Amino acid sequence: MPELRKDLITDRWVIISTERAKRPQDFRSPPIEPDSNNCPFCPGNEGQTPPELWAARERGHANGPGWKVRIVPNKFPALRVEGGMNREAEGIYDRMNGIGAHEVIIDTPDHKSALEEQSVEHIALALTGCKERLLDLRHDNRFRYLLIFKNVDRTTGASLSHSHYQLIATPVTPLSLKAKLAGAREYFERKDRSVFHDILRQEQRDGTRIVFESDGFLVFCPYASRFPFELCVLPKRQSPDFHSMDQAEILQLADALKVTLIRLGRALERPQYNLIVHTAPTRFAHRRSGLWDTLDHDFRWHIEILPRVTEVAGFEWGTGFFINPVVPEQAAAHLREA
Amino acid sequence: MPELRKDLITDRWVIISTERAKRPQDFRSPPIEPDSNNCPFCPGNEGQTPPELWAARERGHANGPGWKVRIVPNKFPALRVEGGMNREAEGIYDRMNGIGAHEVIIDTPDHKSALEEQSVEHIALALTGCKERLLDLRHDNRFRYLLIFKNVDRTTGASLSHSHYQLIATPVTPLSLKAKLAGAREYFERKDRSVFHDILRQEQRDGTRIVFESDGFLVFCPYASRFPFELCVLPKRQSPDFHSMDQAEILQLADALKVTLIRLGRALERPQYNLIVHTAPTRFAHRRSGLWDTLDHDFRWHIEILPRVTEVAGFEWGTGFFINPVVPEQAAAHLREA
Repeated sequence: MPELRKDLITDRWVIISTERAKRPQDFRSPPIEPDSNNCPFCPGNEGQTPPELWAARERGHANGPGWKVRIVPNKFPALRVEGGMNREAEGIYDRMNGIGAHEVIIDTPDHKSALEEQSVEHIALALTGCKERLLDLRHDNRFRYLLIFKNVDRTTGASLSHSHYQLIATPVTPLSLKAKLAGAREYFERKDRSVFHDILRQEQRDGTRIVFESDGFLVFCPYASRFPFELCVLPKRQSPDFHSMDQAEILQLADALKVTLIRLGRALERPQYNLIVHTAPTRFAHRRSGLWDTLDHDFRWHIEILPRVTEVAGFEWGTGFFINPVVPEQAAAHLREA
Repeated sequence: MPELRKDLITDRWVIISTERAKRPQDFRSPPIEPDSNNCPFCPGNEGQTPPELWAARERGHANGPGWKVRIVPNKFPALRVEGGMNREAEGIYDRMNGIGAHEVIIDTPDHKSALEEQSVEHIALALTGCKERLLDLRHDNRFRYLLIFKNVDRTTGASLSHSHYQLIATPVTPLSLKAKLAGAREYFERKDRSVFHDILRQEQRDGTRIVFESDGFLVFCPYASRFPFELCVLPKRQSPDFHSMDQAEILQLADALKVTLIRLGRALERPQYNLIVHTAPTRFAHRRSGLWDTLDHDFRWHIEILPRVTEVAGFEWGTGFFINPVVPEQAAAHLREA
């Protein structure tokens, strides 16, 4: 059973999950990459994954081929969905069972198709799948946060290179999201405006950091970007929840992602990147924290795209203090022209 | 001139410093590694670095060979030491000039000597150099934080493989240190004991996470380790400041580091790692923040050693929420036996 442990000084929860590595020695060599003949995410190999939770299919039946998007539990989950929290002290420390969900959104049947190579309608289908899973999982009162992310690594071929998103439901709110929520609330209390509203207006006024703009979304390089070519995909409509998007908005988001990732791929020769959806914690968590009232107005869901073009140095790991060697305005200009 | 920019939502300061890469395209290929014949950190090549700030030498004269430890300004500094802060608004955002110091502590004249291969006395000499630089830089009222760290990367050969520490003086306190200071202060207010005191006692009582113990230091795998084989080097004497160590304590620290890094090297076949000194901000920063009173009792300086044996996934970058696949007690046992 994985467990969650809390750092006594900073209140940061960490997942200790040994599912994927039984012994310390296993860390000496990288995991073996399955080739496309034996990929559990490819059509025909549905039996290699746990039974599907959601699928969009044009033909066939559940857990067989014919799907366009398929969502399954992670075969090696970082957190376990069965059981109670069992919160307890361990000496002066705090722990609880590693209860949560860990799912895989296989966003294409094509082993070699990158997100930006898919049609806008197909990208939207996967985003709809994500939305459906959020709508389902948020009713589980054990979960405080539902995290959707995508790791894209074409260079080293780590883990499964078949395109997919991951969804992790956790019983704690991640620290960096707490910082964003607290910052957004404080700003709203001071200004009576959402900080995301102000950022949107400032970016439109400046223009220099904009990479893409449509009726629904603004894509820009944040003013204080931590990483070269860091991107923020910000909806123009105020809502704390990713799952509040209607079908038209999901299509707009799919379009924004496609254009942005094509430009990123051209500018940096298809870099490794991480995509993270920052959405509000579940309302259960919010009622507990007293943030329920203002949340609808102050926090706005958004997506961060973090290209990994530079090595992150030790002091950045240890301090959360980043040196970015590319001026965001130059990165944006480079992406606009790509 | 590098600049510092503040994230409007989280108040996180970022250094935008383009000294090392003039154009975005430069990120497509890794920097070229100098061989040992042409290493600016090797004896005989002193002219390739800026003039030295401090040195321990057995013979010769300043900026010539004969030194055992040599401290020089970084030739490509992330921050610039000359100039004023020039704090100003940029639309709704905040910025200031990238004022600071960036120094290199070359801890051995031997191009191929790793820290743990040096004698305890030699390691202590480099730590004394670090202390001397802290004592000098803390009088500069522009600096709020003095950060000492060491990146060790034997595998990919990134940047300069000749062993060295780095010191960065910044006009802002890093976010993660702020979180540690706030957590330590809150704990002290509630318990009238230092959280570091309680952790030390708990670790001694449990014993399962201890890797090394001497009269002066405890080395252990933290209860809520973020990374496999993460290590904390904690002094037994309460002091917020690394630079408060006397010569005997510096020798004890050198001994603790040597033993720990030898064991880490044996257990994981000389992994890449980052070493970070967490010491209190300068007193100038503290007077401003109102933390001056309790600091001496609640915060304790310590060192984190973060081996990089697993790839950090996207959601960890974006959320500060970590999955650690190795149980800290098992990591400690493995290191004790190595």
